[in-house]
Amino acid sequence: MANRLTLWGIEGIPEIGRGDDLVALISGAIDAMAASDPDAALADGDILIVTSKIVSKAEGMQVPIAARELAIEEDTVRIVAERAHAGGITKIVETRQGLVMAAAGLDTSNVPDGLALRLPRDPDASARALCGALREKTGKRLGLIITDTLGRPWRVGQTDAAIGAAGVQLVDDLRGGVDANGRPLSVTVTVLADELAAAADLVKGKASRMPVAVARGLGKLVIDPESPGAKTLARLGEDDMFRFGSTEAYKRGYEAAMRELAAKKEKVK
Amino acid sequence: MANRLTLWGIEGIPEIGRGDDLVALISGAIDAMAASDPDAALADGDILIVTSKIVSKAEGMQVPIAARELAIEEDTVRIVAERAHAGGITKIVETRQGLVMAAAGLDTSNVPDGLALRLPRDPDASARALCGALREKTGKRLGLIITDTLGRPWRVGQTDAAIGAAGVQLVDDLRGGVDANGRPLSVTVTVLADELAAAADLVKGKASRMPVAVARGLGKLVIDPESPGAKTLARLGEDDMFRFGSTEAYKRGYEAAMRELAAKKEKVK
Repeated sequence: MANRLTLWGIEGIPEIGRGDDLVALISGAIDAMAASDPDAALADGDILIVTSKIVSKAEGMQVPIAARELAIEEDTVRIVAERAHAGGITKIVETRQGLVMAAAGLDTSNVPDGLALRLPRDPDASARALCGALREKTGKRLGLIITDTLGRPWRVGQTDAAIGAAGVQLVDDLRGGVDANGRPLSVTVTVLADELAAAADLVKGKASRMPVAVARGLGKLVIDPESPGAKTLARLGEDDMFRFGSTEAYKRGYEAAMRELAAKKEKVK
Repeated sequence: MANRLTLWGIEGIPEIGRGDDLVALISGAIDAMAASDPDAALADGDILIVTSKIVSKAEGMQVPIAARELAIEEDTVRIVAERAHAGGITKIVETRQGLVMAAAGLDTSNVPDGLALRLPRDPDASARALCGALREKTGKRLGLIITDTLGRPWRVGQTDAAIGAAGVQLVDDLRGGVDANGRPLSVTVTVLADELAAAADLVKGKASRMPVAVARGLGKLVIDPESPGAKTLARLGEDDMFRFGSTEAYKRGYEAAMRELAAKKEKVK
């Protein structure tokens, strides 16, 4: 089958701590798998999909749980929406990585007791470093995506998405292209990197210790490791029709009207 | 490799028209592939991922292009956000299928000249019918997902998501679960059905005629075909923090303040 895509999780990656050598640990685990299954050895065109959590851990992004709120504040560019619930307040924020997510991505699951974990400071830079080192170590033409789990409006739950990338064509831009009948395509930009992140989550799994997956069969997407990173996938600022939660935007409109009228009154006086 | 997921597109499905027998056409194309590659025959635990477009076509959801606006109106429960641009007005709406998407999913790409295509009226019912018939025809325990392409706030482009489903466990609900260290998981509900839809898009492709893919390796997710459908993935109403676009919500707040003040004035008189 020409258009076959295969994904599998890498077994045997240990719990990662500050300063661990991810390249050595990932390639070591792959070598161990390949010892009993030669197909598991990396090949040209393979794409590695790496959970951001292990990147954060290796990069030392742990903070004491008591400093969690401060870290959220530091990683927040602006608050998009807030909602109080039984467990506290959920803050949806824009992070400095260009992501919109709850609690700026601060996470306490799969993290040692007493600690919370921030996102990698610059996931694209982390991806470039990892991809470059793994290419050098293996001699193979590889791509690499760093993923995190994002909620989304209008649908329940979360899916994985690409927050860092190197050596992978991120989108299939069909704008200006034609369909099988030669007519213009109205669907425009397929985000392959997010689809790959989602696909890999199906074999990684969150409750197990399987933070890295390999995707084989999309070698045509593997490009120069200095290619644009996942930060280019953000659509914020002017183009963002959902810059604020509905409650927050309503409040801003209400308050603007009140201010206008107060100013008018002042003038009449 | 125990946790291996393989996906491939089904070749040889012809252009679909009103009334065509999708079950016969899909199983015929699979049989033709299996003739030269026995691995391509359906097996217990396989999940079929079907682009909604061919379901709509078979169900006769074509409308003349002149009736496009009327069809959008009919398929719209409420308008979420609007934005004028060079090509016209983009309307993001909530559809009667419980989706939030541009133009209520009305599409003109990969559709014969002069026609536009609506979404299947009830994608979960379509999925149940297709899944049931394919199970009966093949004697295999299959799952089936119907997909469409959705934009999303805060990120560029689109990814495929599940709009109809039968016989597939849609989510992995980790709430109350624990991580590899025995601590509570903060990520709660992984939406496997959307991750599968996204994964399948990587082998289907929009510009080619490959509207059906098979996913093999997630047989543990294949369940009773009368299981809950994809409509359960909608998070609308009270739980929706992005019920309106920021501009629309701002305007509502502004106008509410103006109305309040007008009412006060009226009282003073």
